[in-house]
Amino acid sequence: MTTNTDDTTTPLVPVTVLGTGAMGSALARTFLDRGHAVTVWNRTESKAAPLLAAGAAWRPTPAEAAAASPLVVVCLLDQTAVDDVLAAVGGAIDRRVLVNLTSGSPAHARSAASRVTGWGGEYVDGGIMADPSDIGSDRARLSFSGSRTAYDTHEPTLRELGTAVYYGDDPGLAAVEFLAQVGAGYELLIGLLHTLRLVQTEGADVAAFAERFAQSLEDGYPQVVRAIGKAVRDGDYPPDLGPLSVQAPLMDDLVAHRRSLGVDDTRMTEVRELMNARVAAGHGDEGLAGVFELLRPEKGSAG
Amino acid sequence: MTTNTDDTTTPLVPVTVLGTGAMGSALARTFLDRGHAVTVWNRTESKAAPLLAAGAAWRPTPAEAAAASPLVVVCLLDQTAVDDVLAAVGGAIDRRVLVNLTSGSPAHARSAASRVTGWGGEYVDGGIMADPSDIGSDRARLSFSGSRTAYDTHEPTLRELGTAVYYGDDPGLAAVEFLAQVGAGYELLIGLLHTLRLVQTEGADVAAFAERFAQSLEDGYPQVVRAIGKAVRDGDYPPDLGPLSVQAPLMDDLVAHRRSLGVDDTRMTEVRELMNARVAAGHGDEGLAGVFELLRPEKGSAG
Ligand SMILES: NC(=O)c1ccc[n+]([C@@H]2O[C@H](COP(=O)([O-])OP(=O)(O)OC[C@H]3O[C@@H](n4cnc5c(N)ncnc54)[C@H](OP(=O)(O)O)[C@@H]3O)[C@@H](O)[C@H]2O)c1
Ligand SMILES: NC(=O)c1ccc[n+]([C@@H]2O[C@H](COP(=O)([O-])OP(=O)(O)OC[C@H]3O[C@@H](n4cnc5c(N)ncnc54)[C@H](OP(=O)(O)O)[C@@H]3O)[C@@H](O)[C@H]2O)c1
Repeated sequence: MTTNTDDTTTPLVPVTVLGTGAMGSALARTFLDRGHAVTVWNRTESKAAPLLAAGAAWRPTPAEAAAASPLVVVCLLDQTAVDDVLAAVGGAIDRRVLVNLTSGSPAHARSAASRVTGWGGEYVDGGIMADPSDIGSDRARLSFSGSRTAYDTHEPTLRELGTAVYYGDDPGLAAVEFLAQVGAGYELLIGLLHTLRLVQTEGADVAAFAERFAQSLEDGYPQVVRAIGKAVRDGDYPPDLGPLSVQAPLMDDLVAHRRSLGVDDTRMTEVRELMNARVAAGHGDEGLAGVFELLRPEKGSAG
Repeated sequence: MTTNTDDTTTPLVPVTVLGTGAMGSALARTFLDRGHAVTVWNRTESKAAPLLAAGAAWRPTPAEAAAASPLVVVCLLDQTAVDDVLAAVGGAIDRRVLVNLTSGSPAHARSAASRVTGWGGEYVDGGIMADPSDIGSDRARLSFSGSRTAYDTHEPTLRELGTAVYYGDDPGLAAVEFLAQVGAGYELLIGLLHTLRLVQTEGADVAAFAERFAQSLEDGYPQVVRAIGKAVRDGDYPPDLGPLSVQAPLMDDLVAHRRSLGVDDTRMTEVRELMNARVAAGHGDEGLAGVFELLRPEKGSAG
């Protein structure tokens, strides 16, 4: 694996891009700028005109466009569009690598992978965490998973698009990573917004509160998050924020305070029930991470 | 204000501690260790024996103990205990400062303050984020609010207990800070635990995922949290994680993915509804922080 994409002694891989919407055009434009031979196809031909003017070649069908390059990048609106276009590509992907950068679910990535490999191609799935305008810079973060040999072969080309991380052979892993990272972030931020409502209702300064919480995100929580990840992996739950027997009584105050203000107490009530259930089951000396045992899907909802 | 507690030319303030349970004993012990004259009272006298052996003076009633020192620290089990003991102290607190370090609600702090000031005393409320064993070290974090002159007078003594922050004249602010910081942390961590269930169900490595999320807590989210605090304070919501019109469509994938696995989608569904409502109201070019406008208590639940 090399990341040296400026090595002019390595011939640049010809690339086909299927789909030249906002993101597909940004991908194709970046490959053109780096000197690749680029072939494009788009359902609506007119949208490809600026790329053709910049030197890209046009093919009138997905199959002909795919046949033109060893590396075929797909970036369409959604999974339905991908299914339609894959059906039109079919056996033309034989002995080629298809990299699907359309946002979607892990299940769809796995089913697309099995179709492509059935036609003799190799499949890599990817997710893009960036604006189209950031493609080609380090600010664009891309997650990849699927065929390791295909990824290794084309990593130098894919790294031209941004910061790339490969998560493993299971083609669904890039989508899992994308949906999980984004989801954990929204959990944090919607919880913060409810808490800011509490802070504001109590007459305190919301920006100063957020500043102190930001500091604890920098200083204290990363260590707690790492400890919780390890505890869940090992199924062994040492006290993290202290033993549950000490944490649990505090939850009554947290719930009562939010209720008294009319502020959302969904998660505080859930955490209280989960903690109480763990304490009642004899785990009062363990940490918060142990409530993982009670979470769906494996043991039914504890809420 | 001085933090130089080693200045032997300043006479040390005599301190009374009402309540010698686990935490009250740790407070009294720290004051004794630093050389203060310490008076104690506890409902169950026997629990004060180790402190008396270490040099503390005993008084048989809360009123007599309070009268013995200009600074009276209260640390009892809960708000009911504080109400009982305050009633027994009454006018004995005249021209003294009462610092209540019992965990409780902002409303209780405000009502205790008005009782104490009615009797001619000054009131400071406080919250302790620490184990008793950490009292006397920087690891103990204490939040204070209430009478500023009383806090300023006794800050050097209170700082002997740990790292102290004063939040303002409103006696409820220390409890607001405590309940809000702890609550925002539980929002983050319960959201993480649900996400780890998703990651595990998808066959990915939970500890490696947590490590990457911890990195984004260190690198990316503090800046987003500060921006959201400022946006909410100003009522002006520039794109934070991008414009809502781009964030909102993603929520369908997040909700559908969690539902397909049986993983909790409470917050993702809520965020989706909130985003859609803001986009429908013409705020699609603003950021996530704008959903604050839709949160209880001021505009009713959007869930
Ligand atoms: N834009 C962003 O900020 C951003 C950021 C991260 C990830 N992404 C992801 O990148 C992907 C593409 O987004 P985009 O911004 O490029 O969207 P877009 O500008 O709307 O382009 C959509 C593309 O999909 C094609 N398409 C739609 N339905 C089709 C069908 N049934 N058959 C064939 N082609 C079809 C469109 O063809 P026509 O030209 O014929 O309509 C067009 O090429 C999405 O998965 C998106 O989630 C986008
Ligand atoms: N322990 C911790 O880790 C920790 C950490 C942070 C904050 N805190 C807070 O510190 C405070 C004290 O906790 P703690 O650990 O010291 O609890 P504790 O060891 O259970 O002591 C409770 C104290 O309250 C007294 N008390 C209870 N009900 C009373 C009543 N009706 N009238 C008079 N006195 C009464 C008890 O007197 P008797 O001896 O007669 O029962 C005892 O002195 C709590 O608000 C707690 O939330 C504790």
